[in-house]
Amino acid sequence: MRGKTITHGGEAALLALIEKGLKGVPELPSHAPIRVPVGFGDDAALLAVERGFQMLVTTDLLIENVHFRNRYVSPEQLGYKALAVNMSDIAAMGGTPFQALIGLALPPSTPFSFVEGLYDGMIRTGKEYGVRIIGGDTVRSPGPVVIAVTMIGAVQEANAITRGGARPGDRIMVTGELGGAMLGLELLEKGDGKANTPATACTRFLHPVPRVREGGILARDHLATAMIDLSDGLSQDLAHLCQASRTGARIEGRLLPIDSAVTDLVRDTGDDPFRYALSGGEDYELLFTVRPENAQLVIDRVCSETGTRVSDIGMMCPEDEGITLIDEEGKESPLLPTGFEHFFAKKADL
Amino acid sequence: MRGKTITHGGEAALLALIEKGLKGVPELPSHAPIRVPVGFGDDAALLAVERGFQMLVTTDLLIENVHFRNRYVSPEQLGYKALAVNMSDIAAMGGTPFQALIGLALPPSTPFSFVEGLYDGMIRTGKEYGVRIIGGDTVRSPGPVVIAVTMIGAVQEANAITRGGARPGDRIMVTGELGGAMLGLELLEKGDGKANTPATACTRFLHPVPRVREGGILARDHLATAMIDLSDGLSQDLAHLCQASRTGARIEGRLLPIDSAVTDLVRDTGDDPFRYALSGGEDYELLFTVRPENAQLVIDRVCSETGTRVSDIGMMCPEDEGITLIDEEGKESPLLPTGFEHFFAKKADL
Repeated sequence: MRGKTITHGGEAALLALIEKGLKGVPELPSHAPIRVPVGFGDDAALLAVERGFQMLVTTDLLIENVHFRNRYVSPEQLGYKALAVNMSDIAAMGGTPFQALIGLALPPSTPFSFVEGLYDGMIRTGKEYGVRIIGGDTVRSPGPVVIAVTMIGAVQEANAITRGGARPGDRIMVTGELGGAMLGLELLEKGDGKANTPATACTRFLHPVPRVREGGILARDHLATAMIDLSDGLSQDLAHLCQASRTGARIEGRLLPIDSAVTDLVRDTGDDPFRYALSGGEDYELLFTVRPENAQLVIDRVCSETGTRVSDIGMMCPEDEGITLIDEEGKESPLLPTGFEHFFAKKADL
Repeated sequence: MRGKTITHGGEAALLALIEKGLKGVPELPSHAPIRVPVGFGDDAALLAVERGFQMLVTTDLLIENVHFRNRYVSPEQLGYKALAVNMSDIAAMGGTPFQALIGLALPPSTPFSFVEGLYDGMIRTGKEYGVRIIGGDTVRSPGPVVIAVTMIGAVQEANAITRGGARPGDRIMVTGELGGAMLGLELLEKGDGKANTPATACTRFLHPVPRVREGGILARDHLATAMIDLSDGLSQDLAHLCQASRTGARIEGRLLPIDSAVTDLVRDTGDDPFRYALSGGEDYELLFTVRPENAQLVIDRVCSETGTRVSDIGMMCPEDEGITLIDEEGKESPLLPTGFEHFFAKKADL
């Protein structure tokens, strides 16, 4: 099929290609709390949820030239990222992802090799994380490529972590490091190819790691009072968390775990590293709150079980105090939600 | 907000508009077997499935100028149809739809009134059918409007009806009438406005009724051995059913319930009514098979409980006999799967 487009092969050939790819995917591990008696190839997928578990469902659209550019993302990377950003939403509720449905709109001129690569990436990612593709829809697009992923996960009853449970006094924590994805995007947009751009930052942007294990530990041990994943940037996502919990927050700039690639870069350019850490979208780290007495326990437990760094970056406060950033000299200023806006963005966000 | 576009109001205003619309939606009836402890406004929706029930999940993409044209479909009608076609997939498994997630990609020039109308249509439809919108994603599109609906339903354990259970000797049945939607689309595409086209056929195309109650009766009473909904046209969808069941089929042309608008039209034009009934997509009727001893019972029960006509149109046969159409003179010919092909279609399918 190499070199051929969908117009040359037709829809039947496209579906055959997809089904062939899916046949290689093993059944779920037997301990999965959601079984799939009927998957791909019927009008709807049938799911059986084990007693004691609840389901999580989320959906995200990825649009060509808004969320990604084929110039710097390979179809395989795109397949990975399409699943990863949705797995991150499941992780942000403390759940584990198990199934996905893939809606795909493709221009007729799309090369078959693109679809092959995309599914290769999704199937490989699915195997890595135990996520099975169980259905979807493939249609023609008169414009950009559109990937609509619906991710289904499970969480033990009463363990799900919402955005709304934080209380004043709770410590604010974040996994991993911040700002790397924004830097990676800037470098990719500036460069004319992957070869010209530093690998680490680009990887942060192209290959974000969903914090499924970390979120799972917090849910299992009832350690987080509220949680969200960082897709729009810390300042925006913290505002969402505060709004849902009806609290304010105080963030200490000196405690922010800024990505080392960002620190290295700004040493040369004189740029503001906080801009990356606070406004940079797509880091897909988990932002969560814990009772102060559990703060050290959380940092230690997540690190010992997963190797992932957790940083204590501030404290929730009463709603009427708003959201404050304390800079390295101790100066306080309101932390305004700035970051990615889907309709005004001049650049792609993948 | 009248007259304004998304570019003028920004994403926040758009989300406020959507949330405002959703606030008017009542909670699910208390008997619903899927509860939603956490819905819109978190990273993922949380669902609790009652014991004894299984879940159904399906997703469909609707693309502007492929599946619909704003020239002849109002935003309200589009909202209705986006939900209806997905409800039809749940109905085709014998399930009842309860929740939906809405992915929406919009050009920045989209008028706010379009989004209002679309959500009005979806919310009104949701109320009518007991379907609640519990999540989604709203992003910018550099091209067409894209609506990605994920529909979630429930079915009692062991009651789901797949495509794969038909056996030779089973009678083949279809609800309602065939070919009306294709005629409606042709008339809408030809006409320059809604006023110039016969209402009934256009309604069949613009406002298909998902056969949720009919499918539910067949599942509840274990009366259908296999089922599919007619989205691509009888000849294609029957081929899917036969392939999944590993059977052939014999269809009697004289028994096909051809839409009266089609019959009326071809009386004038000399066109072939079977073309509409066999190749016309988007009728969203249910095509199903029953054991021969249950045939009359099914026809009577569905009609008495729902008022919907059910027609016995043929018989399943061994796979090696293929799929045959018997015309009104008794002449037999292979029934080839013809109908809507998503990548080659020159016209819209909504």
